[in-house]
Amino acid sequence: MKKFVFTCGDINGIGPEISIKALNKLTSLRRNIQFILIIPENVFHKTSKLVKPKFKFQIVDEIKSNSSTSVLIHRLNSVEQNIGKPTILSGKSSYHALKLAFKYVINNYADAIVTAPVSKTALHCAGVKYPGQTEMFADWCGVKNFVMTFISKKLNVGLYSIHIPLKDVSKSLSTKEYSQKLKILNSMLKDDIGLKNPRTAVLGLNPHAGENGIIGKEEQKILIPVLKNKKLGGTVDGPFSPDAFFANREFKKYDMVFGLYHDQVLIPFKYINARKGVNFTAGLPIVRTSPDHGVAFDIAGKGIADESSMIEAFKTAEIILKNRNSSKLK
Amino acid sequence: MKKFVFTCGDINGIGPEISIKALNKLTSLRRNIQFILIIPENVFHKTSKLVKPKFKFQIVDEIKSNSSTSVLIHRLNSVEQNIGKPTILSGKSSYHALKLAFKYVINNYADAIVTAPVSKTALHCAGVKYPGQTEMFADWCGVKNFVMTFISKKLNVGLYSIHIPLKDVSKSLSTKEYSQKLKILNSMLKDDIGLKNPRTAVLGLNPHAGENGIIGKEEQKILIPVLKNKKLGGTVDGPFSPDAFFANREFKKYDMVFGLYHDQVLIPFKYINARKGVNFTAGLPIVRTSPDHGVAFDIAGKGIADESSMIEAFKTAEIILKNRNSSKLK
Repeated sequence: MKKFVFTCGDINGIGPEISIKALNKLTSLRRNIQFILIIPENVFHKTSKLVKPKFKFQIVDEIKSNSSTSVLIHRLNSVEQNIGKPTILSGKSSYHALKLAFKYVINNYADAIVTAPVSKTALHCAGVKYPGQTEMFADWCGVKNFVMTFISKKLNVGLYSIHIPLKDVSKSLSTKEYSQKLKILNSMLKDDIGLKNPRTAVLGLNPHAGENGIIGKEEQKILIPVLKNKKLGGTVDGPFSPDAFFANREFKKYDMVFGLYHDQVLIPFKYINARKGVNFTAGLPIVRTSPDHGVAFDIAGKGIADESSMIEAFKTAEIILKNRNSSKLK
Repeated sequence: MKKFVFTCGDINGIGPEISIKALNKLTSLRRNIQFILIIPENVFHKTSKLVKPKFKFQIVDEIKSNSSTSVLIHRLNSVEQNIGKPTILSGKSSYHALKLAFKYVINNYADAIVTAPVSKTALHCAGVKYPGQTEMFADWCGVKNFVMTFISKKLNVGLYSIHIPLKDVSKSLSTKEYSQKLKILNSMLKDDIGLKNPRTAVLGLNPHAGENGIIGKEEQKILIPVLKNKKLGGTVDGPFSPDAFFANREFKKYDMVFGLYHDQVLIPFKYINARKGVNFTAGLPIVRTSPDHGVAFDIAGKGIADESSMIEAFKTAEIILKNRNSSKLK
């Protein structure tokens, strides 16, 4: 019986609500899977009044290998909620849940993690040094080279840089890391997504992809030389002029679009896949996915949050796990 | 009788083709307008074999005020074509056409300019110092503060920076210029677009609009202080997290979205408005519009280019001209 750990995300955002909503649907679809929801006890009870759990559950303090209940509610100490606001307590609590989830998966007590959204501001206030969950899990795994990706039926994207100021993006670009990340993406497309001959498109950094060096040199100094290397593990085309690439729907020809900074790929990805995208970190030994949206403080506690992306996050983790297992068997 | 000057753009791209195609449609729709197409004579004749002109025309060497022919073909010296490639000759020729068009409009021989796309590479090879047409016309008008905008039925966007390397965007940001550009946009929305109470949304520079200063400081140092100023000439909201803004279709609530760099606004604009957008420079004394796409060297000379955006560019110039004239009369 596979075990999937869900973390409830920031307790003041929509995380607890979409976790229970997603479990209501998933428990009826997947009888052979045990779900473990890590959540402060009071938050579970309060959210249960907003969204009635339709699944059988057992409240536990650790994952018990002898239990086959559909959902284990893995309680954390109760924490004061302040719906709609990032607080030190909410930051500490989400961090604690993530750390616990990681421990379970890295020690093989569970198979994969699906994380509801956390507040970067709350983590920061709580003194957490990581800018986001992606960087956190990578560091815990001891992995320096990884790629934040977003997956959907229409489009998959990867980001070279993640949560850094825009002014630092160019400085962060290096031939070595650019090349490594392309290799990680190709391995992911093969082993995790299950493609035999993956095709990746890379976007330029500058307007018009630098227009032959007239508007910025990074394409000519870093991107193009790396693309001439045949050992990237798959077909890689580009660098494309980013605006024309999306205007002409060129992404439909590729399995992956690799961009250089957060908004370059997330503006089109989230527009095209509103509430259907999944965040996955490529290059880690563990499988961790999450919805493509944030804590949505503005609608928290109202019962109107949409759990679709959380459900997609589970389904994607499930597929990746299966592909990894079958590629190990080969 | 209003006179609209069309420049044919880079002679090796799709410019000449979409100019004649657009005139074929526009001359039947607008009987009271005279169109002047500035184009090298050989290019006009060659393109006429690809797209047969359906309008009455007269080949001239200058705009004649006593002619009422529907289209004046304002010939330039013949130039060697090299379809699909930017050349020194194509750069020189497009520059020459633009300069002439400007002279006619600034001296009131014509009312507005619609420019087919030029190649920035060709202009650069020809020794032209401007990165694009927008910067060229602004300089010729002696205007330092202007805003490149893109207009469509679904969404209007403005760009703080235009054709500069991504690494220079943050450096280019100043409180004074940011505030001036917002004022220019509000004047444009009122005088050129004809809105009484324009509403503008501004996008942050950094991922998550800086997440309260955790991922970059420009929002807090420059954007937010400017937005607190009440004298911007209209309602201005933000800064919004760019990816969430488009994911949630927030732009539908605004008349204008003001972004900070080329791809931040042009990726979503061109995706949402494929081939229907119009480029317009706000803040200039003259009216100049152009399609939102480039020279499309890959499909040049094949007769398959789509003139829709060129037609939209004309229609937008016409509307702006009318609004300016009526706001002058008030």
